[in-house]
Amino acid sequence: MLQTRELFDSLASRTDHVDNQTLATAADALSACAQAVTACAVGMLAGKEADELRDAINRDLNCSDVACATRRVLIRGTGADHGLLAAQLQACVMACDDSHELCARHAPRHEHCRLCSEATERAAAACREVIRSLRA
Amino acid sequence: MLQTRELFDSLASRTDHVDNQTLATAADALSACAQAVTACAVGMLAGKEADELRDAINRDLNCSDVACATRRVLIRGTGADHGLLAAQLQACVMACDDSHELCARHAPRHEHCRLCSEATERAAAACREVIRSLRA
Amino acid sequence: MLQTRELFDSLASRTDHVDNQTLATAADALSACAQAVTACAVGMLAGKEADELRDAINRDLNCSDVACATRRVLIRGTGADHGLLAAQLQACVMACDDSHELCARHAPRHEHCRLCSEATERAAAACREVIRSLRA
Amino acid sequence: MLQTRELFDSLASRTDHVDNQTLATAADALSACAQAVTACAVGMLAGKEADELRDAINRDLNCSDVACATRRVLIRGTGADHGLLAAQLQACVMACDDSHELCARHAPRHEHCRLCSEATERAAAACREVIRSLRA
Repeated sequence: MLQTRELFDSLASRTDHVDNQTLATAADALSACAQAVTACAVGMLAGKEADELRDAINRDLNCSDVACATRRVLIRGTGADHGLLAAQLQACVMACDDSHELCARHAPRHEHCRLCSEATERAAAACREVIRSLRA
Repeated sequence: MLQTRELFDSLASRTDHVDNQTLATAADALSACAQAVTACAVGMLAGKEADELRDAINRDLNCSDVACATRRVLIRGTGADHGLLAAQLQACVMACDDSHELCARHAPRHEHCRLCSEATERAAAACREVIRSLRA
Repeated sequence: MLQTRELFDSLASRTDHVDNQTLATAADALSACAQAVTACAVGMLAGKEADELRDAINRDLNCSDVACATRRVLIRGTGADHGLLAAQLQACVMACDDSHELCARHAPRHEHCRLCSEATERAAAACREVIRSLRA
Repeated sequence: MLQTRELFDSLASRTDHVDNQTLATAADALSACAQAVTACAVGMLAGKEADELRDAINRDLNCSDVACATRRVLIRGTGADHGLLAAQLQACVMACDDSHELCARHAPRHEHCRLCSEATERAAAACREVIRSLRA
């Protein structure tokens, strides 16, 4: 966590006026989320119920791709215009929520779903926090 | 192009009722776009004016990441809910427009900017077409 | 295809002396491959036999990630040192071969596996061609 | 860190017999690396010396793409055959070393280069550790 905050502090040129700690928290939450949904998809696929968990697997795969792209856009910053960052964060909130919705249901039976549902919830909250800051 | 249409035809399970040709056109446009912006960023960076083209390079890098993620979400389809696909396409339209805005200006001097500005324009149009179909 | 060749022609600074048509063919083959394996994973997951096709799905997902990264490294070129590009192409050949091995078996029953097995075969061949050129 | 170890523990099906802590350490190091090189590329591009830092920027961009793909292949595991994982880790070691080589030189002047050179060094070491375990 510390290193991520330091990373944003080392980039002096950002002009979007979002607090570096807010950005660092979001970057780390997106990273943990991308990791958790990728692992959870592997776990669901490896189980005996892959047919049944199909939608949850697809949502996890989407969430991983969207979270990775969002993290990069977040790190790159936005120059004068926050449009893309805000739109990408918004899409990411939906990807996290979609993934969370199904994995939270399977959390009692699958530890990877529990970890995944926590990670997606935290990432969605962190994205919403950046969106709020961009609008402030 | 043909192969992409065949790919979507081979996935019988989609429930979003968007025409397969519209999806295939968008997938190919996103792929060509991701390739063109990545190459254009390389070209701008290699030139003597990287300092000056900084914003254009960053926009190309963002566009590449967003277009790649969007293509995957598009291919995976959306099940009953189109929310994520629509939001991700919307973010991608912004990424393409942002990239296009600057590269179109540099198109007269740099062939890679000309190719890039064409590819981003085509990708944005193709994404808008899918968005329209999702709403229909 | 033409546009990809034009893209490489517009990047004057490459120093790896690989023929631009060879690079363009590989970039397009990697792009088509990434698309086909992503779609094929969706198709296998949507079928009634996801449990049985587990390994093939995982190999397709790996192949998509590796092919996308390889395409970008290929486009960026290599400066004086070809080590990374050669190593990444080598990993990509393995990812394509792994994916091809299983999807070719399922090709008679699943059209998306047939398209996927063709795309991975073509991508592996195109990567091998670039590797040969790097060594020449 | 704890969560990543828990993630690997929750995936019971791996057959590659690499210690979960080794895998978790590598996944986290790759994630931190992808973040640091992306940020460092932004920082170098934003500086007054982008023209001069061109090669370092390109190496950072390559490293980010390769590290992200490697992390996913690592999380997915390998079934009976470790070929792809070993090859992809090997390519990643080269990407990290390439990036490290140039950023370590710029570390005294740029904090983002210092953080980046630490992150790439750690990621390369963690990848080498997994490669060793695969061979054991």
